[in-house]
Amino acid sequence: MADLTSFFRPNSVAVVGASKTPGKISNAIMRNIISSGYQGAIYPVNPRESEIEGLACYPSVGAIPDSVDMAVMVVPASKVVAAARECGEKGVKTLTVITAGFKEIGKEGLELEKKLTEICEEFNMRMLGPNCVGVMDTHTPINASFTAAAPVKGEIAFLSQSGAILLAILDWSATAGLGYSKVVSLGNKANLSEIDFIEEAANDPYTKVILCYLEDIVDGARFLKVAGEAAKKKPIIVLKSGVSQAGAQAASSHTGALAGSDLAYDTAFEQCGIIRATTMTELFDLAIAFTKSPIPAGDRVAIVTNSGGPGIIATDNVEDMGLKMARFDKSTLDEFRTNLPKEANIYNPVDVLGDARTDRYQYALNKVLDDPNVDSVLVLMCPTAVTEPVETSRSIVEARDAHPDKPVFAAYMGGPLLAEGAGILAENGIPCFTFPEPAILCINGLNKYKRYLDTVDSKQARDQLEVDQKTVKAIFYDVTRERRLNLLSSEASAVAEAYGIPVAPIVLTTTADEAVAAANEMGYPVVLKVASPKILHKSDVGGVKVGINSPEEVQKAYLMIMESVHRYLPKVVVHGIEVQKMMPKGTELIIGMTKDVQFGPLVAFGLGGIHVNLLKDVSFRLASSLNDEKVVGAMLSETKAYTLLKGYRGEAPRDMAAVVDVVKRAARLVTDFPEITEMDINPVFAYENGVSALDIKITIS
Amino acid sequence: MADLTSFFRPNSVAVVGASKTPGKISNAIMRNIISSGYQGAIYPVNPRESEIEGLACYPSVGAIPDSVDMAVMVVPASKVVAAARECGEKGVKTLTVITAGFKEIGKEGLELEKKLTEICEEFNMRMLGPNCVGVMDTHTPINASFTAAAPVKGEIAFLSQSGAILLAILDWSATAGLGYSKVVSLGNKANLSEIDFIEEAANDPYTKVILCYLEDIVDGARFLKVAGEAAKKKPIIVLKSGVSQAGAQAASSHTGALAGSDLAYDTAFEQCGIIRATTMTELFDLAIAFTKSPIPAGDRVAIVTNSGGPGIIATDNVEDMGLKMARFDKSTLDEFRTNLPKEANIYNPVDVLGDARTDRYQYALNKVLDDPNVDSVLVLMCPTAVTEPVETSRSIVEARDAHPDKPVFAAYMGGPLLAEGAGILAENGIPCFTFPEPAILCINGLNKYKRYLDTVDSKQARDQLEVDQKTVKAIFYDVTRERRLNLLSSEASAVAEAYGIPVAPIVLTTTADEAVAAANEMGYPVVLKVASPKILHKSDVGGVKVGINSPEEVQKAYLMIMESVHRYLPKVVVHGIEVQKMMPKGTELIIGMTKDVQFGPLVAFGLGGIHVNLLKDVSFRLASSLNDEKVVGAMLSETKAYTLLKGYRGEAPRDMAAVVDVVKRAARLVTDFPEITEMDINPVFAYENGVSALDIKITIS
Repeated sequence: MADLTSFFRPNSVAVVGASKTPGKISNAIMRNIISSGYQGAIYPVNPRESEIEGLACYPSVGAIPDSVDMAVMVVPASKVVAAARECGEKGVKTLTVITAGFKEIGKEGLELEKKLTEICEEFNMRMLGPNCVGVMDTHTPINASFTAAAPVKGEIAFLSQSGAILLAILDWSATAGLGYSKVVSLGNKANLSEIDFIEEAANDPYTKVILCYLEDIVDGARFLKVAGEAAKKKPIIVLKSGVSQAGAQAASSHTGALAGSDLAYDTAFEQCGIIRATTMTELFDLAIAFTKSPIPAGDRVAIVTNSGGPGIIATDNVEDMGLKMARFDKSTLDEFRTNLPKEANIYNPVDVLGDARTDRYQYALNKVLDDPNVDSVLVLMCPTAVTEPVETSRSIVEARDAHPDKPVFAAYMGGPLLAEGAGILAENGIPCFTFPEPAILCINGLNKYKRYLDTVDSKQARDQLEVDQKTVKAIFYDVTRERRLNLLSSEASAVAEAYGIPVAPIVLTTTADEAVAAANEMGYPVVLKVASPKILHKSDVGGVKVGINSPEEVQKAYLMIMESVHRYLPKVVVHGIEVQKMMPKGTELIIGMTKDVQFGPLVAFGLGGIHVNLLKDVSFRLASSLNDEKVVGAMLSETKAYTLLKGYRGEAPRDMAAVVDVVKRAARLVTDFPEITEMDINPVFAYENGVSALDIKITIS
Repeated sequence: MADLTSFFRPNSVAVVGASKTPGKISNAIMRNIISSGYQGAIYPVNPRESEIEGLACYPSVGAIPDSVDMAVMVVPASKVVAAARECGEKGVKTLTVITAGFKEIGKEGLELEKKLTEICEEFNMRMLGPNCVGVMDTHTPINASFTAAAPVKGEIAFLSQSGAILLAILDWSATAGLGYSKVVSLGNKANLSEIDFIEEAANDPYTKVILCYLEDIVDGARFLKVAGEAAKKKPIIVLKSGVSQAGAQAASSHTGALAGSDLAYDTAFEQCGIIRATTMTELFDLAIAFTKSPIPAGDRVAIVTNSGGPGIIATDNVEDMGLKMARFDKSTLDEFRTNLPKEANIYNPVDVLGDARTDRYQYALNKVLDDPNVDSVLVLMCPTAVTEPVETSRSIVEARDAHPDKPVFAAYMGGPLLAEGAGILAENGIPCFTFPEPAILCINGLNKYKRYLDTVDSKQARDQLEVDQKTVKAIFYDVTRERRLNLLSSEASAVAEAYGIPVAPIVLTTTADEAVAAANEMGYPVVLKVASPKILHKSDVGGVKVGINSPEEVQKAYLMIMESVHRYLPKVVVHGIEVQKMMPKGTELIIGMTKDVQFGPLVAFGLGGIHVNLLKDVSFRLASSLNDEKVVGAMLSETKAYTLLKGYRGEAPRDMAAVVDVVKRAARLVTDFPEITEMDINPVFAYENGVSALDIKITIS
């Protein structure tokens, strides 16, 4: 783990390229560091000045008499490399490079950025940026950035890949009342990325929630590992914009076409416990929820309301998001029946009626919080003639304090009449919205995080699969030597078999006699197929004969295929003819793999057959996660194929254990051999006992 | 159409049950009418007072010397009926019944409500409520309600089924700056409903947008008709909460199980051009958009931004919602290439860069608005050192004024730094949000409405189908006489055939010889099935024999079925055995019908076969809309079945015209015969030429 202390708690800071001119970025940074109350030494560096903002100015970093922890760079791009070298020689620990004009402007900038990175490596310096707004820590305090608005102290660490969005959010937070522990503008991420800062924030005692705005993730494998560990300590909420390249890249396979453009990120985030926000509003609503609320024990929500309509709306929201409406304990219902007015709805949502004053809200809220079947509560209020928003808010705070383990949210549906009451809730850390929907969204986010923590706790021992890597290596070696990328069916089957995947017997033959021998050996009926990676649509050129039942038919089919293929495609050299045993029909599945540029192999599972791209019944997981039986089980259960396998409409159930095993082995295969760029096993027939992989396509690089 | 003028522009108002006591609803209404500036006569009615709020008080409505247009009732529930009769005798035109204690409290209240409704009918009075907050018209002006906050004058007509939500929204609107033309609290909808007020508002010159919060719709057919017409004049935006009963009610058929609980509302709203909001926030965002913006000509959105990140976020939103990112005209790109800085992104989203001042925003915005390939524009701003929010906002207003046909939205991502600029936009009717998402959502709403207007314009002549109603009537008559609800397969096939749906030949036979004769007549192979509506799983009791190829086999199968069924179910009386011709396999479709309590028959179309409930590939339309070929076409095209029918992966296309015809005929059948409660035709085989309906299940009531 990188030591990033010098970014957040440096003993001394040099501002390389500091300026006297108000309005310039190079002056704003000086002013921000000073006005943030930073207690360490500040050294402006500028050969043309002797003093800036009342501080002695140095001609160069080397001329500074003392040691320097962090250097903030605002010199022009052309001078950054030289200045960085000087910092290295001086023993500076961290660089924050504000200067723009690097990778983002194209080839020339990329060269410059590469040189800068090399200097950092040479002198073992850590670098933030280039092309960033800077870095802030409200607890040190230090604001080494050129922002107009300084962040208020708080518990959110905010990492942003967009400087503009960071500036926007800081300005907006002034109105919204959000506080931050650290704010980091990631810039071009040439040396340090979100991964390093997530790791750091996870260990920062002042940070409760990690918030990220990201446009890409470069090192997917490291991100997964670090974020997955960090999420065990603190919730990480990410707004990821932009589109991944997975879909476009691998669209030549079934599996590739099925993987939506953003699927790899969704899959990866879920795997490492990251809560993904879909809008900016959601991002900050969730940030507030995670800062203020405990994590609920489960997904059962209770609603207390003084009017029916909003209760119905909130109930709809609860069900839409897959949360559950709590079913109250009998004792709670009995109490309500006795103590609430008879017109009140005592079931969930509890309607305490429009004439409810504080006492009735207080009573009902405490009762539902006491109920063991309730995990979190939403209080709804509409303004009526008798509503007491201020007093009721105080009683909600008390009830929450008496039940600190259960999240309490509020939606006060109104304006001026309820504003003071809503303010009391907000001041006391009870998130209060105008409408119910965002509150339910927050409860849902908390609950997703709870589910992640649960799976982390219950991770089982990884399975050890027996596989034969040598055979696979030998086959790939041969294919590569022939300068091919696509394996023949018989080769792909041999690869799968080496990894313990049951395959339909298939043999490559080069004479009719060989074909007959092969068919006799495996038993009838058989299929004959021309073997050539160059022929995409074999049936169209007479290259396939099915349902062959005798040696004579094999002879005849062999010659017919050769003749027909030669007639259609006289120039194509074929490898021979593959003889494959016809298997009894089972439930048709697909197991495939496509590759994401960031996160590596993604395995797909679902309904197979020729209509696979039409049915789109597939679930995806990162291959690296599929050595855990639980993950495989969850993956299978998301598909309609799973319903069929369990025995649909009275049919006998299929061999689920064998299916799970094939998925695990396929995942292991694509993990062990990164040279596999695409794989489709379609169909895999699942039987009451066992499975059989029929048509296997493997492409290597 | 009901004349509702007296609710909104009464010449005189009586308040029956008016009170002197401040804080009471019966006093609040008096004060609200007076303080709203109402210019007509106001008559408080209360036998115990001589004067209320400075106005002469009358002991009864009959004692009022002048005529009374509207009576507002606040007497206790027990006195409402008598007071209403008095109003009727006086010649009062409209009643607004505030009093609660009717249908909502159960059986007793329902009785009272019925009596009240009867009096309204007897005297030809129109009634709002009971159990409502009242009615307001800001242009008359009159506020005949007990709200604490009066609405500001504006162009939104707001109808709310929940009084609490109405109160909440009025309070909230004070902060949000929303204005209303009319506000109506619908209450129990005993006499007048949202339908009447939608009709009224559509013709109100002061109303630009109709906004509804609804919990149910009682008269679905009338709603569709009236709302569909009203939506041609003005946009109607509805938040409908709560769950329809369609799913639960008809879950015994395939089609019923496939129809989600809220599907009928979705389908109905789409059909009559209503924009459905899913959250309260959306409801009001859309209200603002429709009040302020023109309707765009199409779905092509341009974005002008001063930073990349928000541009990416907005682009994601545009694509997620199915809108299109505009592709600029070559001339626009050429101009941009010449006149924008070389680092600027000249393609959509146009990035005018962080150092953009007003001139550059102004230039780029006017250019994209000039571009014929752009239908609407979103301007994004993040606060930077040089941003000029106030001046830029003024230039955005100017650009919009110069291009009044294209909607312009803004997202100013910040707080205090951008607040004044955002205010200028809002004052000038350019909706400005903090984040891009709600702006795109609004553009999407405008666009949905545009699509509705387009379909309205292009409605084709309805098709005339030849059908034989007599035969169907005769079959239903026979079935009902036998006290059955389920038709035999042969009866259902005869019904379908009478409506011109091609069916596989099927005959009910009662002896083996009859069966042989029938099979000889229709040709082999045939299927024999036991005919009994009591036997649900015919195969399980040996009641089905397939693939019968000769008279001898028919004989044998007939006897075997009879014997087997008798052995399993000795007490079941069977109608005989049905002989059906086996048809060649085609693409398997389902065409079915389920009934919604509000909107009547919903027709389903999709992939058929035994896995229909697993595949869930169905689209729904209200049967009443399926006499329009365009609607049928749109319905089909939403399914995967459609992709198969068009000829998937090189297969020959199926007879689409024949499929469309069957859907239309099925819709006509269930419309002509409301006694059909459920229908499943599954499978329908579609061939290259023609179709054939195989298994038809019809249930009648």
